[in-house]
Amino acid sequence: MDTRTSETRLRIERIRDALTASGVHAVLVPSADPHLSEYLPERWQGRQYLSGFTGSVGSLVVTRDHAALFADSRYWAQAEAQLAGSSIRLEKMNSGASTQYIDWIAQHLQPGQVLAVDGQVLGLALAHLLRTSLARSGVTLRTDLDLVQAAWDDRPGLPTAAVYEHLPPQAAVSRADKLARVRAAMATVKATHHLVSTVDDVAWLLNLRGADVECNPVFIAHLLLDASGGQLFIGDGKVPADVAARLAADGIRLAPYDQAAQALAALPDAAKLLIDPRRVTLGLREAAPAGVAIVEQINPSTLLKSRKTSAEAAFIREAMAEDGAAMCEFYAEFEASLARGERWSELDVDTRLSAARARRPGFVGLSFSTIAGWQANGALPHYRATPESFAQIEGSGLLLIDSGGQYLGGTTDITRVWPIGQITAEHRRDYTRVLKGTIALSMQLFPRGTASPMLDSIARAPLWAAGMDYGHGTGHGVGYFLNVHEGPQSISKAVAEPAMAMEPGMVTSIEPGLYRPGRWGVRIENLVLNIVVDTPEGGAFGEMLGFETLTLCPIDMHAIDLTLMRADEIAWLNRYHATVRERLRPKVSGPALAWLLKRTEPLAA
Amino acid sequence: MDTRTSETRLRIERIRDALTASGVHAVLVPSADPHLSEYLPERWQGRQYLSGFTGSVGSLVVTRDHAALFADSRYWAQAEAQLAGSSIRLEKMNSGASTQYIDWIAQHLQPGQVLAVDGQVLGLALAHLLRTSLARSGVTLRTDLDLVQAAWDDRPGLPTAAVYEHLPPQAAVSRADKLARVRAAMATVKATHHLVSTVDDVAWLLNLRGADVECNPVFIAHLLLDASGGQLFIGDGKVPADVAARLAADGIRLAPYDQAAQALAALPDAAKLLIDPRRVTLGLREAAPAGVAIVEQINPSTLLKSRKTSAEAAFIREAMAEDGAAMCEFYAEFEASLARGERWSELDVDTRLSAARARRPGFVGLSFSTIAGWQANGALPHYRATPESFAQIEGSGLLLIDSGGQYLGGTTDITRVWPIGQITAEHRRDYTRVLKGTIALSMQLFPRGTASPMLDSIARAPLWAAGMDYGHGTGHGVGYFLNVHEGPQSISKAVAEPAMAMEPGMVTSIEPGLYRPGRWGVRIENLVLNIVVDTPEGGAFGEMLGFETLTLCPIDMHAIDLTLMRADEIAWLNRYHATVRERLRPKVSGPALAWLLKRTEPLAA
Repeated sequence: MDTRTSETRLRIERIRDALTASGVHAVLVPSADPHLSEYLPERWQGRQYLSGFTGSVGSLVVTRDHAALFADSRYWAQAEAQLAGSSIRLEKMNSGASTQYIDWIAQHLQPGQVLAVDGQVLGLALAHLLRTSLARSGVTLRTDLDLVQAAWDDRPGLPTAAVYEHLPPQAAVSRADKLARVRAAMATVKATHHLVSTVDDVAWLLNLRGADVECNPVFIAHLLLDASGGQLFIGDGKVPADVAARLAADGIRLAPYDQAAQALAALPDAAKLLIDPRRVTLGLREAAPAGVAIVEQINPSTLLKSRKTSAEAAFIREAMAEDGAAMCEFYAEFEASLARGERWSELDVDTRLSAARARRPGFVGLSFSTIAGWQANGALPHYRATPESFAQIEGSGLLLIDSGGQYLGGTTDITRVWPIGQITAEHRRDYTRVLKGTIALSMQLFPRGTASPMLDSIARAPLWAAGMDYGHGTGHGVGYFLNVHEGPQSISKAVAEPAMAMEPGMVTSIEPGLYRPGRWGVRIENLVLNIVVDTPEGGAFGEMLGFETLTLCPIDMHAIDLTLMRADEIAWLNRYHATVRERLRPKVSGPALAWLLKRTEPLAA
Repeated sequence: MDTRTSETRLRIERIRDALTASGVHAVLVPSADPHLSEYLPERWQGRQYLSGFTGSVGSLVVTRDHAALFADSRYWAQAEAQLAGSSIRLEKMNSGASTQYIDWIAQHLQPGQVLAVDGQVLGLALAHLLRTSLARSGVTLRTDLDLVQAAWDDRPGLPTAAVYEHLPPQAAVSRADKLARVRAAMATVKATHHLVSTVDDVAWLLNLRGADVECNPVFIAHLLLDASGGQLFIGDGKVPADVAARLAADGIRLAPYDQAAQALAALPDAAKLLIDPRRVTLGLREAAPAGVAIVEQINPSTLLKSRKTSAEAAFIREAMAEDGAAMCEFYAEFEASLARGERWSELDVDTRLSAARARRPGFVGLSFSTIAGWQANGALPHYRATPESFAQIEGSGLLLIDSGGQYLGGTTDITRVWPIGQITAEHRRDYTRVLKGTIALSMQLFPRGTASPMLDSIARAPLWAAGMDYGHGTGHGVGYFLNVHEGPQSISKAVAEPAMAMEPGMVTSIEPGLYRPGRWGVRIENLVLNIVVDTPEGGAFGEMLGFETLTLCPIDMHAIDLTLMRADEIAWLNRYHATVRERLRPKVSGPALAWLLKRTEPLAA
């Protein structure tokens, strides 16, 4: 047993002591913080601390006799490696069964026993589901205990990074306008107050950005709005005085971070509080007095921010051109260097690509940690090379690079796969099937209001036809200089939320993939904008939407098996490359320009 | 105002009197019976009686001041016509929003007011949803009143048709085997009892058939199973003595229909009752003593009967050949007659096609009322010609015929569209787009366990690409000499039920369509069987399923716009027609054979 796993065993023992001391029989530690964020500040990475599993999504359940970590297929290989030697068993979650642990808990607890989950990090919707499901098995839910705290001596504090304003021209809609639009939505349901806990909603609504979470320019805060003003609950000293003054001018006062619950408790009985059960915790919901009426619906800001304005879309196009230019510069350098026989590791790819992005105007930082996976590492959808574990790019095969940047005018996320050396017919078939999936969805029209999950099979169909599939979703929403994963739309088998209709202005990824464990992975990803499309039917069957591909970067054509491509697919690719050439040409010069021109030559049908 | 609408006004007034007399403020009359059937015996057609709207699905809500009928897009034209002049307003339901009336009720009632729904016809899952949703608006639900009864003097009694056995060889699985399989499922959740209310489940499980509902060979009954026996609650005199004796030999005793609730009330406290909340009413659920443990899950029989055995599949193929032969005979006669200049009405089509089916061995009856819609009538997806209102087939255009039969060895459902006279380029484009949708899904492979709604967009994609869509689902499950609409799978935007994974042996329709109101409609429908398909990947990405097309009947090729067809689509059509020719050839002779041979000639790519 190595040090890491013996530490994990010790931590599990400590949380079992806490179970016994509190008289409960099991604890569920979800990947969650008081804001129900996807990426968690260290303080709330208790699941990672206790289990040693570093994947970004997963739930730990510890009973007095068993410990189980629930992870989806993206993380199975990683979790198996990281849990090896610990006393924690990996429970493989099926796609779409994100609450599979509920059945496990029901099977492992007896009627009359008690499950603890910290209500401060437990989403309201999940709390309802847990309570109802466990009640069927006679298991009681306790939400007033933070057992992680008891088992974690040196728990990190709250993040302290300063907050700054997202300014015009990129902040194309003013804070006052956004607040007015949210208040209009409050008025339609006669809500007097509205609590916003999700950090990307708070950042968007107030045109503020921060650095509390790696790669996501957000900050930890709650916002309680009323009909004319609001309180921002945020760590002391995070908001500079000039920003605080401008917030005050828009009616937003600052309050200590830990006083959100007290403010809710002080609401008058006549108040009507709008909350999003998927985006507010049970802890804060229960802070409101019993007499306060509650309206549960999706945060108005979640819907509003998903639909980019035309001014925002223009800035996104500009950010995409900068991002594409960085890609051209990197790839030109990378190819020339390989041609000279120089050695590159996956870490070098990350370093040099990040440096190319950092040279572009408007660049703020990466939007997520670069995934550069050579051959077998490319088969791990969430792989990240580290100085302790990385591969040299040598021999022949496929290099998968999934990367993105935060720009003042938008957030990018792009995956390309590059053949190195002499690739095989099998590489080509896999690459081409995935490319067909990307193209199929990219060129599909669909009625406005189509539920986003219904588009998932369009991208999978060309893979399914060959007996292939991939274990992750096809696409996620993307923020505007905000989180690279942003709801509410999701092109995925897993139906997360009722209100996920596709609407004009939404920005979403299209990223089918194919993974052969131990061999290679393929994923080809672009971001696309939902646009209204005129058709010969002129709206007789409803308004039709289509995708404008926003991402601007050549797609490798050497790895294509042309016998698998249809004429309409080749035509799409040629149109795309013509656009890429036209839009990136003014942004690059020298070897990068030469590379761009060579890589955007039309393909013969 | 005509007689019909003045009667409707009178009936609405009478139910308002009943509201006032009972001290409630509104009543919801769903399309439902105590078995939650899709097609209702007359006794439970209270919504139709009260509103005059004869569509098979729709919900009526009457308050003291308003009356509204909720119907989906299939019925809008019909409902508008039938409600004209009444005091009832049509509320158009969006696709997938089957409980849209809940919001309407919340808007039209005040907090503290009471909505009545008869708990005897209210599904348990819907009751939970209604109660929770209405509670948010402060509206109370009362389920102990049958206000329809109060407003309906001459309400029909229970249907009295005799029950008969579905016998081997077509009943390929014995009653004892089916009971044992359901009891095994009960044992896995430690259920001691199981109530089955859905009439197709009862019929399937006991290998019995009846004639209580038009076109569906089912009978009105509840079944309460325990670990070794069971009680069938059924109208007196419906089960012949010899059948009763054979049921008794399998441990099934007969009991009066109205004693199901009493039997549930008499369950011992140690009992654990398995019920399906979507397939049992609130009334029966509440009959069980409070001490009885309840396990809520989908009826085991619903899943079991959806997966046809290989013996059943063989009988279905045989029934399809008989059905296809009937179609050939009909179409050969129809075309020859038109060529001679004879006049046909939509009613003639129904009569002659039904007669052709009736001549086939194993035929029992129609599986639904034939839809024969000439031009504008074809644009009404649920059109039925009546002696009072039908069209003559004259001039040029498209004739849509959707029809099916009940055979001892299976249930059929087929839609074809035939061009008459000189059709236009627009007819051809519409026809071809729909055909491409049918073919796209028919040839698609997909992973076993794919949720059935996820396949919906595969059939729509070719229509969407042209700015077109249709307002109904793409496919429904089909029973085995049972209901023509059978769950749990449904290829549809509306996600009705969590457990709808596609599994081998399921039989489903594929029926995309296109409707131009006032002009014409197109729908091309086949039934398909889920089969396991070997792929070059050999299961590396999970087991793959595909569709075997069961329906055997030529698809018209004169209406195809060949410029819109891809080579792989033409190849599919030619393979299909080769199969149709080979399988139907031994079943037909004379003009029908000549027609078959002509209509199955391969199309040049």
